Amino acid sequence: MEDVWQLYREDLAQVEAQIKKTLTSEVPLVNEVTHHLLTSGGKRIRPLLLLMSTRLCGPLTSETILLAALIEAVHTATLLHDDVIDEAEIRRGEKAVRSVWGNQISILIGDYLYSKAVGQAVSMKNQEVNETLAEACRKMSEGEILQLSHHENWQVTEEEYFKIVGLKTGSLMATTCRLAGILHHTSQEIKEALTFLGLHLGIAFQIADDTLDYTARQNRLGKTKGQDLKDGRITLPLLHLLSHCKDNERKELEQRLQGHCFSDEDLTYILGRMQEFGSIVYAQTKARTHASIAKKQLALFQDSPHRRCLSIMADFIVDRDH
Amino acid sequence: MEDVWQLYREDLAQVEAQIKKTLTSEVPLVNEVTHHLLTSGGKRIRPLLLLMSTRLCGPLTSETILLAALIEAVHTATLLHDDVIDEAEIRRGEKAVRSVWGNQISILIGDYLYSKAVGQAVSMKNQEVNETLAEACRKMSEGEILQLSHHENWQVTEEEYFKIVGLKTGSLMATTCRLAGILHHTSQEIKEALTFLGLHLGIAFQIADDTLDYTARQNRLGKTKGQDLKDGRITLPLLHLLSHCKDNERKELEQRLQGHCFSDEDLTYILGRMQEFGSIVYAQTKARTHASIAKKQLALFQDSPHRRCLSIMADFIVDRDH
Repeated sequence: MEDVWQLYREDLAQVEAQIKKTLTSEVPLVNEVTHHLLTSGGKRIRPLLLLMSTRLCGPLTSETILLAALIEAVHTATLLHDDVIDEAEIRRGEKAVRSVWGNQISILIGDYLYSKAVGQAVSMKNQEVNETLAEACRKMSEGEILQLSHHENWQVTEEEYFKIVGLKTGSLMATTCRLAGILHHTSQEIKEALTFLGLHLGIAFQIADDTLDYTARQNRLGKTKGQDLKDGRITLPLLHLLSHCKDNERKELEQRLQGHCFSDEDLTYILGRMQEFGSIVYAQTKARTHASIAKKQLALFQDSPHRRCLSIMADFIVDRDH
Repeated sequence: MEDVWQLYREDLAQVEAQIKKTLTSEVPLVNEVTHHLLTSGGKRIRPLLLLMSTRLCGPLTSETILLAALIEAVHTATLLHDDVIDEAEIRRGEKAVRSVWGNQISILIGDYLYSKAVGQAVSMKNQEVNETLAEACRKMSEGEILQLSHHENWQVTEEEYFKIVGLKTGSLMATTCRLAGILHHTSQEIKEALTFLGLHLGIAFQIADDTLDYTARQNRLGKTKGQDLKDGRITLPLLHLLSHCKDNERKELEQRLQGHCFSDEDLTYILGRMQEFGSIVYAQTKARTHASIAKKQLALFQDSPHRRCLSIMADFIVDRDH
């Protein structure tokens, strides 16, 4: 994956410069907060995905760079709101904006980033770009709301979990890849393939994230282990465990989970049971399956370094340790 | 003003139906919350303003109704976020969404409403409409951030106050009126006049709101009296008082304000001093001045019931008691 980052280093530097340019405001506090956001890491997975998909279809243009920057702005806006919702202290290994400036600023800077991104998208005067972006943003918020409506609902189904994941994470990645096709006026078939590619990469990404919440070493993840469990968020590994253990054990598990004051001992117990039932392996396998579906779409494109990079990225998304 | 509401009753009913149609989602919780929002009042000042401005320029179309609905959605989105920021329990005399479903849902439904509004605006395929709306949304969030950056800053100037008010309230009303001109392809001069009209109506509206925070009877306002003061928000009446009392009294006032645990006695004291220095009258006069500036723009339009209604509305905005 290091070689991939290297190949796109210059393109990504252009994106970084564009993000900086896009976010400049006449309100000093906005600049202070966006500076913090810009310098506190972030993998830039979505911009990279747009760059790669664009290169699959043709050359890079200034429009690609603009779009990559505004997609990252939209993504960051959702993170700022997520952090308030989850009461997260840490983001990308650094202090979350809400830990430094408070929830209020985290909400408002999220709104600012989103409105700026909309303005930039509008300035491109491309109807299809605007339609697909607006749809992705709506779906993302619907996914977050659906997830919250299943808070501590131990009866939630795997089908519902995949619906949430598709909406909250899949939709923006699907749109990201589709935009490459839109900018290059590709056939409908190619646009659909790109959308499918992004959607399944997104689903794989989210399952991997949800699994890492149970397995990652704390300092690598940049957030607290078992956080989803503590927040009452039921993700794939837990769903698997709940549907495979016996009734009496399920009841005991639910009681521990319902307790709210969740001890390290509880976490160790649940992790042990997950190992036993193969819940972690199950989730990892599911993530790989979706990465494979994504990679299959690449067959529609000629072989190129960019096609190979996308394939590597699909593997990286599921095999990463943070 | 009752006659005005009566004249636009049918148009407003169309807007109401459009809002309901726009906000329907496949996520049940979204529909539950938007139903609460739709049935818990709201003056629909912005939709009415768009209807009136449109009628000044020509007939009403389905595009006007769509725009009126989406402007109300954008406005409601900002209220949902404001309520989280201000920890408000009551909105429009009813329980705030955050009081019923919590802060998380209030944030996410705000995001949903905003993304839905953007999607609807994009579907109109009108570049100018989308540009002016995106600009208004950006300015609104900048205004809110600027206001927050002056939290408990007793040195803030009147100039800065007017900048905040223009951004956070003026910009959406300015855009609302401008959109009428855009839809009817009026001259640049008329568009500018409409923008100016909306901007100053918005400023008048906000000053009146800020003054009502000190003067309104609690049950009429649907929120707690003196709330701005308790929240450390410095508005025009207080700015006037602080800049007109003597140094030692200013110091005493600042100490009371800084105290956070603000008693009814403190509020009574401050209200008394405001009466003495004419701070309330000063703010009311300022609101009237901006309403007059707004009304002056009407001279560019032929006399009509709609022109008279806008003039009545400008007076209503500053003279209302809630």
